[in-house]
Amino acid sequence: MDNSHPVVPYIGQAAWAFVLPHFSDYAKKTLATLIQFVEEECLPAEKLFHAQVSTDPAKRWKQYPQVIEDLKAKAKQRGLWQLWMNKAQYGEHGGRLSNLEYSVMAEVMGHAIRIAPEATNSSAPDTGNMEVLARYGNKEQQAKWLKPLMEGKIRSSFAMTEYGIASSDATNIRTSIVLDEKTNEIVINGHKWWISGAGDPRNKIHLVMGKSDPKASKYKQQSIVLVPSDTPGVKLVRPMQVFGYDDAPEGHFEVIYENVRVPASNLILGWGRGFEIIQGRLGPGRLHHCMRSLGIASRALDLALLRATDERKSTFGKRLFEHGAVVRELAESRISIDQARLLVLAAALVVDQHPERAKGALREIGMAKAFVPTVVNTVIDRAMQLHGAEGISQDTPLAALWAQVRTLRYADGPDEVHLDQLGRTELKRVDAVRAKYAGVQKREDELMKGEKAKAKL
Amino acid sequence: MDNSHPVVPYIGQAAWAFVLPHFSDYAKKTLATLIQFVEEECLPAEKLFHAQVSTDPAKRWKQYPQVIEDLKAKAKQRGLWQLWMNKAQYGEHGGRLSNLEYSVMAEVMGHAIRIAPEATNSSAPDTGNMEVLARYGNKEQQAKWLKPLMEGKIRSSFAMTEYGIASSDATNIRTSIVLDEKTNEIVINGHKWWISGAGDPRNKIHLVMGKSDPKASKYKQQSIVLVPSDTPGVKLVRPMQVFGYDDAPEGHFEVIYENVRVPASNLILGWGRGFEIIQGRLGPGRLHHCMRSLGIASRALDLALLRATDERKSTFGKRLFEHGAVVRELAESRISIDQARLLVLAAALVVDQHPERAKGALREIGMAKAFVPTVVNTVIDRAMQLHGAEGISQDTPLAALWAQVRTLRYADGPDEVHLDQLGRTELKRVDAVRAKYAGVQKREDELMKGEKAKAKL
Amino acid sequence: MDNSHPVVPYIGQAAWAFVLPHFSDYAKKTLATLIQFVEEECLPAEKLFHAQVSTDPAKRWKQYPQVIEDLKAKAKQRGLWQLWMNKAQYGEHGGRLSNLEYSVMAEVMGHAIRIAPEATNSSAPDTGNMEVLARYGNKEQQAKWLKPLMEGKIRSSFAMTEYGIASSDATNIRTSIVLDEKTNEIVINGHKWWISGAGDPRNKIHLVMGKSDPKASKYKQQSIVLVPSDTPGVKLVRPMQVFGYDDAPEGHFEVIYENVRVPASNLILGWGRGFEIIQGRLGPGRLHHCMRSLGIASRALDLALLRATDERKSTFGKRLFEHGAVVRELAESRISIDQARLLVLAAALVVDQHPERAKGALREIGMAKAFVPTVVNTVIDRAMQLHGAEGISQDTPLAALWAQVRTLRYADGPDEVHLDQLGRTELKRVDAVRAKYAGVQKREDELMKGEKAKAKL
Amino acid sequence: MDNSHPVVPYIGQAAWAFVLPHFSDYAKKTLATLIQFVEEECLPAEKLFHAQVSTDPAKRWKQYPQVIEDLKAKAKQRGLWQLWMNKAQYGEHGGRLSNLEYSVMAEVMGHAIRIAPEATNSSAPDTGNMEVLARYGNKEQQAKWLKPLMEGKIRSSFAMTEYGIASSDATNIRTSIVLDEKTNEIVINGHKWWISGAGDPRNKIHLVMGKSDPKASKYKQQSIVLVPSDTPGVKLVRPMQVFGYDDAPEGHFEVIYENVRVPASNLILGWGRGFEIIQGRLGPGRLHHCMRSLGIASRALDLALLRATDERKSTFGKRLFEHGAVVRELAESRISIDQARLLVLAAALVVDQHPERAKGALREIGMAKAFVPTVVNTVIDRAMQLHGAEGISQDTPLAALWAQVRTLRYADGPDEVHLDQLGRTELKRVDAVRAKYAGVQKREDELMKGEKAKAKL
Repeated sequence: MDNSHPVVPYIGQAAWAFVLPHFSDYAKKTLATLIQFVEEECLPAEKLFHAQVSTDPAKRWKQYPQVIEDLKAKAKQRGLWQLWMNKAQYGEHGGRLSNLEYSVMAEVMGHAIRIAPEATNSSAPDTGNMEVLARYGNKEQQAKWLKPLMEGKIRSSFAMTEYGIASSDATNIRTSIVLDEKTNEIVINGHKWWISGAGDPRNKIHLVMGKSDPKASKYKQQSIVLVPSDTPGVKLVRPMQVFGYDDAPEGHFEVIYENVRVPASNLILGWGRGFEIIQGRLGPGRLHHCMRSLGIASRALDLALLRATDERKSTFGKRLFEHGAVVRELAESRISIDQARLLVLAAALVVDQHPERAKGALREIGMAKAFVPTVVNTVIDRAMQLHGAEGISQDTPLAALWAQVRTLRYADGPDEVHLDQLGRTELKRVDAVRAKYAGVQKREDELMKGEKAKAKL
Repeated sequence: MDNSHPVVPYIGQAAWAFVLPHFSDYAKKTLATLIQFVEEECLPAEKLFHAQVSTDPAKRWKQYPQVIEDLKAKAKQRGLWQLWMNKAQYGEHGGRLSNLEYSVMAEVMGHAIRIAPEATNSSAPDTGNMEVLARYGNKEQQAKWLKPLMEGKIRSSFAMTEYGIASSDATNIRTSIVLDEKTNEIVINGHKWWISGAGDPRNKIHLVMGKSDPKASKYKQQSIVLVPSDTPGVKLVRPMQVFGYDDAPEGHFEVIYENVRVPASNLILGWGRGFEIIQGRLGPGRLHHCMRSLGIASRALDLALLRATDERKSTFGKRLFEHGAVVRELAESRISIDQARLLVLAAALVVDQHPERAKGALREIGMAKAFVPTVVNTVIDRAMQLHGAEGISQDTPLAALWAQVRTLRYADGPDEVHLDQLGRTELKRVDAVRAKYAGVQKREDELMKGEKAKAKL
Repeated sequence: MDNSHPVVPYIGQAAWAFVLPHFSDYAKKTLATLIQFVEEECLPAEKLFHAQVSTDPAKRWKQYPQVIEDLKAKAKQRGLWQLWMNKAQYGEHGGRLSNLEYSVMAEVMGHAIRIAPEATNSSAPDTGNMEVLARYGNKEQQAKWLKPLMEGKIRSSFAMTEYGIASSDATNIRTSIVLDEKTNEIVINGHKWWISGAGDPRNKIHLVMGKSDPKASKYKQQSIVLVPSDTPGVKLVRPMQVFGYDDAPEGHFEVIYENVRVPASNLILGWGRGFEIIQGRLGPGRLHHCMRSLGIASRALDLALLRATDERKSTFGKRLFEHGAVVRELAESRISIDQARLLVLAAALVVDQHPERAKGALREIGMAKAFVPTVVNTVIDRAMQLHGAEGISQDTPLAALWAQVRTLRYADGPDEVHLDQLGRTELKRVDAVRAKYAGVQKREDELMKGEKAKAKL
Repeated sequence: MDNSHPVVPYIGQAAWAFVLPHFSDYAKKTLATLIQFVEEECLPAEKLFHAQVSTDPAKRWKQYPQVIEDLKAKAKQRGLWQLWMNKAQYGEHGGRLSNLEYSVMAEVMGHAIRIAPEATNSSAPDTGNMEVLARYGNKEQQAKWLKPLMEGKIRSSFAMTEYGIASSDATNIRTSIVLDEKTNEIVINGHKWWISGAGDPRNKIHLVMGKSDPKASKYKQQSIVLVPSDTPGVKLVRPMQVFGYDDAPEGHFEVIYENVRVPASNLILGWGRGFEIIQGRLGPGRLHHCMRSLGIASRALDLALLRATDERKSTFGKRLFEHGAVVRELAESRISIDQARLLVLAAALVVDQHPERAKGALREIGMAKAFVPTVVNTVIDRAMQLHGAEGISQDTPLAALWAQVRTLRYADGPDEVHLDQLGRTELKRVDAVRAKYAGVQKREDELMKGEKAKAKL
């Protein structure tokens, strides 16, 4: 087995053994290049990135860190651009990696989560929006919006979550999308929040979901429209905070769309096809999210190791790992990460093997989505606790990472919904199980009858 | 039983039944007044308090919210001032409440944690500093610093935690405290951080712990000195963040003491008596911390109830409590809070019954300290999860409360240290247990011998 | 405080401080006597007890251990007989202890769970049956069955759980109870299981619950009838096992009642009043169950301490407590037990303070019932793990105790049902909470309005 | 992908996709045959097996169930004999399956854990003993003992665990193994317990580990000797119980070896090579144990599904899955099983890829060993809880399975030891991690310096 690949310290020999038969030479080489890029360029750039975000409220949402633009150029040069779009699913737009191959890369990027995904043009919400445009946009829409997005020249938002209603049930959406037949314009009125990326000065386009036909059947009521960020009536109300973080320069904004007017040609796919679009949007991307999270967890475990063995942090004459339950907790974090990774990779493999895309792997994707964030938060929390108060401060990345992963327990529906769906999928197995045990029972009865007959003789 | 007292909705009838025999009429009346004050004045003032803290970095640490000063006046009028100092322990400075009585009040205050403790002059770190001055300060020090602190005219800091070393082992402290015999001044040089309250413009005095005699025996090396905040050489480096929060206007600061000089009379209690002082400082205050945390948890549970039953947050036609495990989680939060409260109250009762103060209750205090913060964080986390993304934003108090309670898992030593001490206390029981079972074994042998004898007949 | 009482090593000084104001001198003295009895007589008798239960299937259910009869005589002499029936609730039949006082004694008895309860005539299911007869039986029934039960001359069963249906919903019960008007006899037909105590040769009476009027309203369909164990048609089918244990000599039997006939005077309380009877039966007894379980947990923790410090069990040159997480787990067990005890004791105090019996304390009883068994099983499991394979064998009491406590998670309804009820009780608080926060909101709005007005000036 | 293979309902499509590239056609066919055998022959035989074990203590250890011998013949016919010995490791004795291939089969066998492993001659402790003899036995020893073991004609024991000492540290072993040079016989004196299989009348040989040279270096003191079960001085003292189960007909016995004499030629491998032998014995076998446990967990989940959907077990008009947290718990069990399986399979693949056998996979094996039993017990416990009291009785297999898996938390060293080793393996990574982050730090400093330089311009 090829155990010399530089990814082995990242994912361990066991996971590497499992995925290796599915890795092309191109993927192996790209993976090695990516690791180098992350270690040499992305991780060292984090501090500068934060230094380049202004703390002055007046400038905070008007600038973006130059370092990230420099890194984008470097990533392109190294062939690390836009790796996430695979050929099978995106045709002409697609690259050369399978989901499984890219999933491993997503974990590596997770080690420098604030830098690497954006530097390689692989960061949310742009990825999901490119997915939508590549799959459902028409030629004109692709030329106007997909092209600059794929070149990393602009950024974008996806406006779905609404203010003041339960967002995990998308049928609750109330933003109105109406065709003004006189002007052949679409008129949008709605109140959204948690619109990620809306605060970025590079943001040029919102994909807005709203109700276009309240009388249609449940899953035909919604449509999605392209709204340039500078359209009159698009009002950024305020940045939402995640714990105490506002995640500038992108942010998560409360946005009001007030009598916003766009040409009818800005409708994506067709009237009432909003649900269809978001269904397609939420598959493999969730796995990539999970893998990036596992990269975060792995980094937290690395930091925990450094701290646990740091002479300067000794107490009562012992390094931290020599106290109580620390060694055990390191082991538990290691186990949690390794088994979670295998589950997500297995799901990615199933996605690759289903040309009909993610549908055949919904159960596996649901599993990953439902429990990876909790696992990762637990690993980070242990690392924070080892770091003492420093662990929850701005002096390690841990607290901000913890907060970021905590949001994943809501994103694309809360954990609870995924666990519930998964449990219901299990329940569907019951007929097959019942049939099997009915057969067992029948044969058991025969055997016992035979025994009794013998006993009588 | 008197179940009509307004505290029953706060602590339940069972805890009330347990503490009632120990409550004076004065305490019962004061408790009722406090509840009214918290509900009518403190909870409603939270929003205004935050609005009065400037977001402009240039002003953020130069102002304080006027509303809190207004409330301090009201609290004094209502006889709710400085309730935490009890007579038994503080003599002339002490008030009229036992630890148990005040503990219940601390939980009530926890419902408005940002407002009520400060409004009643019962907030950290001032409380601990007043404790030190009342117990160990001389008349002159008390006149100069304790008096204005008790009147709520100034605020204070306790500077113990040091930058770059493990703070849970206080013998690690390296700040130097040296007597310059020529000038009869004490010279302080050191690098501290997490100095709570240091950013407040009302802060006038730091109690600084440092090493005065590195050659003395382990627990005689440290001294504590009074350092006025405006002494030359006291440099506020930066506010530390807790999950992105800077907790202005007080904050938690990195502070450098560079050739800071104060008169020799600013030494508290005597040279080398720093450990003795901090030992006295950490007893009942920990219980009050725990009770305030349980108030926070109770509020989080209240918010969870409101959300779980909110028609507007229905998904798929059901309110949240009608889904899956919500009802069960509410029950688990209720049980966690109720049993934790009883444990802390029992510890407070033991403290009251030991005139030698907290020493007789170290085991009970340790238990409370070791597990209450984890319990409270779990209860808040469940409440956050019920609230969806709103729960981790600035639109509910939950995320900030979670972050604040998370710090308690480090304050005064991490959980792990308390669990370890508690486990070692258990181990000390082993001789008594062994003696008991040796007796059992002896009698068992006799009985079995008798049986065998009988069997032989 | 009186910290010299011998119960302090059992329940700790904190719980003792809390209950002391509620303990009469008689109760204190009786408690001391009980502790002596448990340590000197009950614990040493366990081995002999098991030795006196035959392993020969032919004799196993025909004998009972003589040692328990000897101990019953001793308990009577020492004034430790039948302590659980308190005067407030049982009038002429009642003893002199409150629920709270007896609850502490129940924990002490739990240290010798197989011996002490029966030796003091305080063991299930006799206690519950005596409760029913004392409260609902007529004079004739009391003379015939309650008297010998209270004297410890006979034993009894309560036959509720039915074979093949979900037992946590008592409306499912199908056993038929029909009056044959010709003979004025009651005819019983049904299939029960898990009838505890039915295997004991001293068992003389079953209280059988069944459906007497399927057309009545839901809670009026059931009746309870006294059925002497030797009535024709009462068939013991087999002993049920609990993790391989059959709990001889009492056992838990599958029992078929086939055309069993008893005089109409054997009906308890009246036709259709079965539910009313079992409602009354399940209050304080549940708390006593919980306290006994906590005695079991405390014993398990004692055994864990002995093992963790045993030189002979050293591995790699260290005693067990010197490895990894052992000390921490001891601490966690100690915290779990101590806080659970306080919760149950608080519930017992509330019961005492409600003359209308347990109804006012349903919430507290439900909490105790829902989580104490899980806590206790966890404590025992840790103790087992420390003991290695010996811990799950017949050479320590741990495995059998674990199995016994595991059954409590089903008895009187599974954990889940209690958690659900408790959560629904919480939900009932929501109107009060909403009203409170509406008031807060109103005042907050005024304050903010004032602030804005000021800002405009 | 070939998703039609009958193993898919057992391990899911994701795990199947992962292992498929490593499965030979022979393995795929054999796996299908095995599934049929387990469903049609093994599961239905369980009841008969138990019926054929006598409950009469006089006969209990003198007989064995005939049904298992019938099944052994059937397994041979179907080519399902002795599948676990793979060619790579056992040369001439080996079969045709890799560890990975066999691991999947081990899970399938776990569904009928009491029957399938023995019926296919793949049950402990015979497997481990055959391993030892195949690898370390000489030709003569192989002819005499390995051959009949491989033919399923005799059974065997491995006598390592000693009475009264901590067994997880094998250096504690005290049984003496001495060469009597006069007679050229080996003399064995020792007191063992938990000797699995010793009670079986078909047991013909014990492999006994003991101390042959107390003065040798630590890992050279022990030797292993072949002791025929009927050698004078081999005394079966009593069967140990696991909870209340004695696991007849094999059992786990306390055994005294009193002046037992065997020819010197019964020594395996050589004097002082006991440790070397047991090191080799504990590798892949542990993975097979884990996979069988996961088969047990999967069966428990199947039973949970059946129960949760059973109309007859409805309470309050709802089936169990319609209550509270049941669906969620089913999901959690599914996730736990699926990720644990992937971890074990990945470890098996690594073992296959390391010709030097298990050493290269110690970390992965340790992970599996440390946490799979806990996962499986949790899954079974949930299934038991769903079944009510029936779940802990003899009427479902759940309680016995739970107890059996509980023992795995001690077997081959307790969980704690494996977690500790795993944590220490993590700590070894720290130098590489430190080097990596030192590089990051260096580059970060350069970047920040550049930024400052720019700022100055």
